[in-house]
Amino acid sequence: MKVLLVHAHPEPRSFCAAMKDRAAAVLRAGGHEVVISDLYAMRFDPVAKADDFASRRDPEYLVYALEQRHAFETGTLAPDIAAEVEKVLAADLLILSFPLFWFSVPAILKGWIDRVFLSGLFYGGRRFYDRGGLVGKRALCLITAGARSSMLAEGGIHGPLEGMLRHLLQGTLGYVGYRVPRPFVAWHVPYVDRATREGYLAALERYLSEVATLEPLPMPSLDRFDAAMRPIPSGNREG
Amino acid sequence: MKVLLVHAHPEPRSFCAAMKDRAAAVLRAGGHEVVISDLYAMRFDPVAKADDFASRRDPEYLVYALEQRHAFETGTLAPDIAAEVEKVLAADLLILSFPLFWFSVPAILKGWIDRVFLSGLFYGGRRFYDRGGLVGKRALCLITAGARSSMLAEGGIHGPLEGMLRHLLQGTLGYVGYRVPRPFVAWHVPYVDRATREGYLAALERYLSEVATLEPLPMPSLDRFDAAMRPIPSGNREG
Repeated sequence: MKVLLVHAHPEPRSFCAAMKDRAAAVLRAGGHEVVISDLYAMRFDPVAKADDFASRRDPEYLVYALEQRHAFETGTLAPDIAAEVEKVLAADLLILSFPLFWFSVPAILKGWIDRVFLSGLFYGGRRFYDRGGLVGKRALCLITAGARSSMLAEGGIHGPLEGMLRHLLQGTLGYVGYRVPRPFVAWHVPYVDRATREGYLAALERYLSEVATLEPLPMPSLDRFDAAMRPIPSGNREG
Repeated sequence: MKVLLVHAHPEPRSFCAAMKDRAAAVLRAGGHEVVISDLYAMRFDPVAKADDFASRRDPEYLVYALEQRHAFETGTLAPDIAAEVEKVLAADLLILSFPLFWFSVPAILKGWIDRVFLSGLFYGGRRFYDRGGLVGKRALCLITAGARSSMLAEGGIHGPLEGMLRHLLQGTLGYVGYRVPRPFVAWHVPYVDRATREGYLAALERYLSEVATLEPLPMPSLDRFDAAMRPIPSGNREG
């Protein structure tokens, strides 16, 4: 299996980085090929902007998604984007490794998504969810959080983590076609002792050993919606 | 009323920019003071990183939130962050104006939140939601979306917009104490005609004229949780 591990933490010695390193080591020991994009180390530019396109379809008015299509078709994508796109396409498994910043990814990782998940290639028209460009691949999130797990659960003060991360798990990873198991989360990280951290790393190893069989989160299916994205009454569905 | 309008669109002539301009004009005509942070025009740096802190509490190991507290207390915040913090604190109303990128904000706006919403000042310890640092203020989102409204509704393919934006509406704006009415959304923007766009701008004016009375979205209350963030049985709540 080919794995792309995209890591986004500003402190190279963080526990999040330790999780990333352990994940890479375990997967490599299992015979998998692991490529790492360490966004802070790469000084990855997260801002989607006009300069991303050397040759514009419309130099007067920027529609970012349309320029993404044009640049991909004409081979004029900015080199830093093109390199990441190639890595994503080559990988059977995408792993996002990040600390929870405002119940989402840090901006440097959000911008990696904004710039790399190309319109036309990753999705477009009716090609999303179970018809997305990356159908057949898996994506995982490895997360460090300051909160306790009970705070991001049903009945907890913030509600379930999967609800907070719906924009990422469903709206981004599921949208382009990935199968997405529940994230791996190390909770309360700044406050726990070394033994608890060691326990997280051991649990991470178990999680990754089961990656091929982890149940994916439920995602919408295009089969249930017509061309105008109206729900199809269940009696009229194809198949 | 003092208003801070934070705008994040890469095309200065976009419909999103037209909404921002109309909002500013209407609010100014209503006697309000409007400050605009146009993040693309400012070339705002969205990456939370060690360089944000001139004088580190711990130069060896970066915990971003702890360095935020230290830098604020010692007046050593990076000038671009300090300027935005001051604008946020001065404003009774915060307006975020942005195109929906991956069911969330563009990275440049995510990074504005990551860097500007300071630990210790905006939140910290048990100071969040109805005890957050910005209690008493309001925050609105003005959004342009490519999707049709029916796709981001109950029963629609993506589910309700408020669910996708939970990380922003509740997890960010609500978390620091803002009252947050439902967002204003212009749907299907790349595909609609001029009359529909004019209709959106007129609807935006009505929305803003009602801003003081718009019902806020429901948010969690700290009153319902004990010091360890365990739910308090309803019979035992204070008040």
